[in-house]
Amino acid sequence: MKKLSVLHNTFFIERTYPKPPAKVFAFFSDPVKKRRWLGGDDVGFEVLAFEPNFKVDQYERWQYRFQGGLLMRTDICYQDIVPDHRIVFIYTMTFGDKRASSSQVTVELTANGSGTLLRHTEQGAFFDGTEPPEGREQGTGGLLDLLGKLLEEAP
Amino acid sequence: MKKLSVLHNTFFIERTYPKPPAKVFAFFSDPVKKRRWLGGDDVGFEVLAFEPNFKVDQYERWQYRFQGGLLMRTDICYQDIVPDHRIVFIYTMTFGDKRASSSQVTVELTANGSGTLLRHTEQGAFFDGTEPPEGREQGTGGLLDLLGKLLEEAP
Repeated sequence: MKKLSVLHNTFFIERTYPKPPAKVFAFFSDPVKKRRWLGGDDVGFEVLAFEPNFKVDQYERWQYRFQGGLLMRTDICYQDIVPDHRIVFIYTMTFGDKRASSSQVTVELTANGSGTLLRHTEQGAFFDGTEPPEGREQGTGGLLDLLGKLLEEAP
Repeated sequence: MKKLSVLHNTFFIERTYPKPPAKVFAFFSDPVKKRRWLGGDDVGFEVLAFEPNFKVDQYERWQYRFQGGLLMRTDICYQDIVPDHRIVFIYTMTFGDKRASSSQVTVELTANGSGTLLRHTEQGAFFDGTEPPEGREQGTGGLLDLLGKLLEEAP
């Protein structure tokens, strides 16, 4: 067995968006918007399955691959949802049959003039060197930037 | 609505035990041992329900109260299990109908001579001032001390 290890890493990202919290929240709660955001052409993964399930204590599941590579899974389980205000979830990433990481995420939305301040706190555990933690913060920042772009395009 | 807030808090606790990792792991995996440890007289809660379910992606649920007080729930969901080595889970605490916190825990067990080094890392999010984060580390330390006592008594 490869040597077991766990690296813990917490990061915090803020973004401001020109749309109100309900419009931002919709990208988490509405499966069509979420699919467009996290599984669309901008992200570049081939989505093989998406089972939305935005409810506390329930699992939402993605399966995807990148350029014909390894099957990857993201399994999301919601811990707390306060509509238009707060979403707390855990998500695991699995590469092939290897659980790579498990992270707890808190998304807080607050009205900021006519827009929204989004605060993303991610408390991660990375297993056995499968994935370096450093890339996660950068990747998440990119997804939050993409959310801003989609919000600007939205009616 | 009470003002929403989230406090994030991470703590790390180590304990050494005189029994090997398999004996320590059994207190997480064996429902009878777990019930004795976390729901026994030493802890002092009245356990109203315990639904063990030590499997990845599955929920294990406790309901209890303290001296006739508010109904409390702990819901545990396992993210990664490597027998005798590692357990990763999320757990939420709910007081009445109020979600108070959600935490990701990593328990790492390594052989230490004829005994075990246990490392507990807890990455918590505490909601709306329902529970101060400071007590959690102290409470967890007490439970890990109790585990040591039960391990010494075990055959």
